Amino acid sequence: MDTVVTYQYYRPASRLTVFAHIFGVIAMILMLVWLLHYREGVDLDSYDPNKIFNVHPLLMFLGVIFLSGEALMAYKTVRAERKVKKSVHLLLHLGAIVLGIVGIHAAFKYHDRRYLRNMYSFHSWIGIGTFCLYILQWVIGLCMYMLPYTRIETRAVNLPWHISGGRAIFYMTIVAALTGLMQKSALMQLPFFSGELILINFLAIFILLFGVTVDISVALARYA
Amino acid sequence: MDTVVTYQYYRPASRLTVFAHIFGVIAMILMLVWLLHYREGVDLDSYDPNKIFNVHPLLMFLGVIFLSGEALMAYKTVRAERKVKKSVHLLLHLGAIVLGIVGIHAAFKYHDRRYLRNMYSFHSWIGIGTFCLYILQWVIGLCMYMLPYTRIETRAVNLPWHISGGRAIFYMTIVAALTGLMQKSALMQLPFFSGELILINFLAIFILLFGVTVDISVALARYA
Repeated sequence: MDTVVTYQYYRPASRLTVFAHIFGVIAMILMLVWLLHYREGVDLDSYDPNKIFNVHPLLMFLGVIFLSGEALMAYKTVRAERKVKKSVHLLLHLGAIVLGIVGIHAAFKYHDRRYLRNMYSFHSWIGIGTFCLYILQWVIGLCMYMLPYTRIETRAVNLPWHISGGRAIFYMTIVAALTGLMQKSALMQLPFFSGELILINFLAIFILLFGVTVDISVALARYA
Repeated sequence: MDTVVTYQYYRPASRLTVFAHIFGVIAMILMLVWLLHYREGVDLDSYDPNKIFNVHPLLMFLGVIFLSGEALMAYKTVRAERKVKKSVHLLLHLGAIVLGIVGIHAAFKYHDRRYLRNMYSFHSWIGIGTFCLYILQWVIGLCMYMLPYTRIETRAVNLPWHISGGRAIFYMTIVAALTGLMQKSALMQLPFFSGELILINFLAIFILLFGVTVDISVALARYA
């Protein structure tokens, strides 16, 4: 009975991982089309403040959403021993943090260039709050599960918190991304049903689909 | 050992449920202050289109977020036999669907009165998509877990899908709410750090905190 159930759950969960990769890559492509074709392009050292701003959505999505989603799925997608899976999980999240720092810097640099106020919208509040929790979760995870001195019982007792907390932070990054995209989309006042608006809408949909498929595929795999 | 672990998880999970209720009530109060004090008030049959619109955020939050969050926690908060818990879970979700239908109707009615296009933003796309999935999940849940002819093995095998899918839909309602609030907030062009903008920001934060604490408290309770 146990084997049957494991098999039944594992199959659809694996298929969902494939969908998650596909949704993530489609979102990445739509993001690049948006920033390079419809917007001014991406350059952190440009004289054009818009090029500086565009670094922000690109790196926040690539880092804190795409890489961290892949980090959540690493225990399923990396075919190696558990120690390697853990290291990939840790390093992907570290990469996300590095890209996130540069991405947040880009937003502040853009505001400075344009003499705009910082931190006035709830996108920025949720974004900064989530990023702080993300780093905190990473540091706690490192101390709890990578350093050798933590007792195995302590690790086991805290694992549900690590998993539930990590998932909540992952969804918070999706919320931060989509509120940011909506803020930009509304402030640009694009014509109804223009090409760029439709593209942004599909970008938002695929970011959300990536988040949902990552969550469900990881959750179902734990039932197996 | 089993008892110890159960106890350790159950305590913080219960406390989180209390926080979830508090965050939900605070969000409800902030929503009412926003709509009744800063905005024009709430009336579906008004001649003022703004009063018609205001029904939308109120009922979508009260129904599809607050009631559905309480429905997710019903298995923990309702102290009765399992059959009663299930009925409360089902009925709260049904209430959410009824309020959601009226709330979505209010948005369309407002657009009609103002001669605005419908369904142009990704808030509306995500909102409608999520609401359809919500109803689908409710109907499948009814057939699978309430009607007597479903085999107990079928119920057990599909429970992880019901739980993971339900949680994903719940987070999607949070995303829909916050993208809608951001769209409204950006289009109103409120002065930086005005009272109303700060209130909206805290409203968004408390809706998100409600979502996260509902999820984590329900998830941790299942480990117990």
